[in-house]
Amino acid sequence: MSNPSHSSAFKPILSRDIEHWDIDTDVAIVGFGGAGACAAIEAADAGARVAIFELASASGGSTALSSAEIYMGGNGGTPVQQACGYQDSTENMLNYLRACFGNRADEDKMRHYCENSTDHYQWLQRHGVPFKMSELKERAIMALTDDCLLYTGNEKAHPFPDAATPVPRGHNLQIEGDNGGPLLMKLLTAAVEQRDINVHYDSRALRLIINDDGAVEGVVVRIDQREHTVRAAKGVVLCAGGFCMNEDMLRTYAPDFAEGLVPIGNPGDTGAGIQMGMSVGGAAINMDSCFVSLPYYPPSSLTYGILVNDKGQRFINEDCYHGRVGYNALMAQKTSQRIYLITDVDGYGDYEKLSYLGAQVAGTGDTIEELEKELALPAGSLQWSLSTYNKHAKNGEDPYYHKSAAWLRPIKAPYVALDCTVGRGPFYPFFTLGGLDSKPTGEVLDFNRQPIPGLYAAGRTTAGIPRTASGYASGMSVGDATYFGRVAGRSAAVRR
Amino acid sequence: MSNPSHSSAFKPILSRDIEHWDIDTDVAIVGFGGAGACAAIEAADAGARVAIFELASASGGSTALSSAEIYMGGNGGTPVQQACGYQDSTENMLNYLRACFGNRADEDKMRHYCENSTDHYQWLQRHGVPFKMSELKERAIMALTDDCLLYTGNEKAHPFPDAATPVPRGHNLQIEGDNGGPLLMKLLTAAVEQRDINVHYDSRALRLIINDDGAVEGVVVRIDQREHTVRAAKGVVLCAGGFCMNEDMLRTYAPDFAEGLVPIGNPGDTGAGIQMGMSVGGAAINMDSCFVSLPYYPPSSLTYGILVNDKGQRFINEDCYHGRVGYNALMAQKTSQRIYLITDVDGYGDYEKLSYLGAQVAGTGDTIEELEKELALPAGSLQWSLSTYNKHAKNGEDPYYHKSAAWLRPIKAPYVALDCTVGRGPFYPFFTLGGLDSKPTGEVLDFNRQPIPGLYAAGRTTAGIPRTASGYASGMSVGDATYFGRVAGRSAAVRR
Repeated sequence: MSNPSHSSAFKPILSRDIEHWDIDTDVAIVGFGGAGACAAIEAADAGARVAIFELASASGGSTALSSAEIYMGGNGGTPVQQACGYQDSTENMLNYLRACFGNRADEDKMRHYCENSTDHYQWLQRHGVPFKMSELKERAIMALTDDCLLYTGNEKAHPFPDAATPVPRGHNLQIEGDNGGPLLMKLLTAAVEQRDINVHYDSRALRLIINDDGAVEGVVVRIDQREHTVRAAKGVVLCAGGFCMNEDMLRTYAPDFAEGLVPIGNPGDTGAGIQMGMSVGGAAINMDSCFVSLPYYPPSSLTYGILVNDKGQRFINEDCYHGRVGYNALMAQKTSQRIYLITDVDGYGDYEKLSYLGAQVAGTGDTIEELEKELALPAGSLQWSLSTYNKHAKNGEDPYYHKSAAWLRPIKAPYVALDCTVGRGPFYPFFTLGGLDSKPTGEVLDFNRQPIPGLYAAGRTTAGIPRTASGYASGMSVGDATYFGRVAGRSAAVRR
Repeated sequence: MSNPSHSSAFKPILSRDIEHWDIDTDVAIVGFGGAGACAAIEAADAGARVAIFELASASGGSTALSSAEIYMGGNGGTPVQQACGYQDSTENMLNYLRACFGNRADEDKMRHYCENSTDHYQWLQRHGVPFKMSELKERAIMALTDDCLLYTGNEKAHPFPDAATPVPRGHNLQIEGDNGGPLLMKLLTAAVEQRDINVHYDSRALRLIINDDGAVEGVVVRIDQREHTVRAAKGVVLCAGGFCMNEDMLRTYAPDFAEGLVPIGNPGDTGAGIQMGMSVGGAAINMDSCFVSLPYYPPSSLTYGILVNDKGQRFINEDCYHGRVGYNALMAQKTSQRIYLITDVDGYGDYEKLSYLGAQVAGTGDTIEELEKELALPAGSLQWSLSTYNKHAKNGEDPYYHKSAAWLRPIKAPYVALDCTVGRGPFYPFFTLGGLDSKPTGEVLDFNRQPIPGLYAAGRTTAGIPRTASGYASGMSVGDATYFGRVAGRSAAVRR
């Protein structure tokens, strides 16, 4: 019989209908990005036979496209945090994450991660991942030096210091330029290759194979234009990325992000892993939520500016992480036709040289009145917002949005406005944060939070630690993917 | 075998495993609210044997709890619209709905509804539903007179007049007081009782019954503490409401609405219909979206006031529908600790007598400065917002939020502030707008938008016409439920 329960594309098949198994393994891993690599290494180290099936012709996934500033801390601090003079407790890190994700948070996963991310640091180091005992103090979206530690989120921005003591937790790999992701995947790929792991490239997972009780027993994979049946005695681990490249899924599940933004990820981020999981009863959660960014720094000096809507109103403390700013800017556009970043010439600084924002100059003015007219803002609105901001900034205060004193200084004539409206130039990258519900062990859960035997997942195929753009910090996704990839691989390997 | 694909709670069973059918019918309808009643009437009129299974001891569902101001128009206008001097074209109505729901809209359903809602008016009238040829001109959340026609949405509020000519489409039943819902369900129930329809009360649908190809062939229902197998030769129609009473589902699927709000619906709105649909592969969509309201009128005179956040900033044109205001107020609270409605004594008017908002007076002042201090707003912020508002209101203008001139007048001392913050008194009712994807015919769709044979749904078990609170108008849900309930019943009845 066909399994009646799902769309034809990813409909599972029954193991008893399979006459011949083409490949026999203990743990079958779908996807060879950060999560899949780590799952494979741990599963092999736990003694399991492991096979990886990767859609592309090489490893990497979206991890290789990222900056790979891995978010780690807690437990007294990583060696780098300690060397740089920071203390970080597990509770402090957990409190921070709770403040980040509110009622969308997965408390179990967060606690697990906060308790173990310093161990994860050691594990990465043992696999050759280099971290320098140094800090990058610049406000940056990514480290372009080989320095390690940097603030990659909202730790110092209102209201987060009320919830947790600010500590930097982004760990950049020791390599010049924005090359952390490629280096990380090169090292993890080498670790896979050193082990007795069968890697199949150009291999597309099509359907899960289940027994009569619904337990996952394998996966059908298309290799060389032929469908291969893969028996996975211990389990299948779905590490197939998110769905930012699947327009249908975006329109269906994440409509707020479905138009005008730029997906960042690899072409395989089509949600196939999520759909395979759903096809056997896995619950897909947090599907409406994406990471989105307005990367308005570098230059960091633009942080001295203010963001306003088409009423000339500010709407965020501009010292937030670019993801929080991006999300709020995007939501503001539900009732505002335009978003502008207002800066002075000092703040504008090296914008044309350093920025990759793509925002055009929408207006300039020797007076605010002039700029306000040029931007067609309500008469007096920007004058009020800016004069009020300046009056308080002079005293190091922002009674409206609580931008920290470090980023407060009066904005002086002449003025420049950058158009930060979606669709009018600026780069708004996004990727998905929804996926299969799972336990910290990697076990995929059904709607009643009961595990589906034999099915595991990690990375953006799951709803992991990061749940919203407004709480996101760089390194949370790679941290979550690599760490929970490891746990999922081990869990599958030791399953009885 | 058990069907492996879903959570145990609603796991479907295979028809070939059924030894005895307790009940045999053509069309089995789950739920006897507005959608279920209309489905039953149409299915019976199309010649099918029909059975209704209702959880409660009487008909009604959430329709009976509503005001039942049915949203209808287009096609030249309903008789009431015409009698009251309004013209309404199908395209105008469709343009309005498109503006309401943006990229969440279901174009097929909307077109179907706009083309046929005047026919629906006639159908309701034939079943005894009384509409008076009169208009209620007061801005009201519900009609307390027996007048029929009223504006129940954002038709006249910015930016909607840019998209469609404003026309009132809310049709209140001819009955005094807020009694439209009970009357509607009384009449529809009588129409059911006049037909040869088997109604089973105190009957809980548990699982769908499917054949080996995944087609739905019946439903298991618990009656008198015993499970009954119901064979539905033509189909099962799920009309079991939404999920506003299911806290787990809310936290999982609609986290923005899961805390501090008041669910409005009947106790059976637990999402059982949606979960049964999902259990056989139905796609649940728009699940993150709910209707939510801040019912700050009556008295309508409060519309002359302004809503501000804890920065003293306005964030919405206050002449919007209470659902749009409620949604924006709720979202504003992601970056604001307080929401206040600022009014003068004239605007406050009969608040204490007429309102059911529950908002407490947070402060009063003979000057704005005094009120601003009492509310702990940034110094000067409310003074700026209010003086700016007043300056323009005097000229009938609102260059910031484009409130219509009809609701613009300067707010005069002394001032009153009502605390509209969630959790501090005000009533924020909500219900869910996510559910099974379906065709206008009522056929339930899988993720690839392929129908699941034998399965139909209507009402809030589906994602219907209304998709967001910001685009909602009163009467859209009852209109959608009753109209598409009819179509679903007929579709099932004539299925080959």
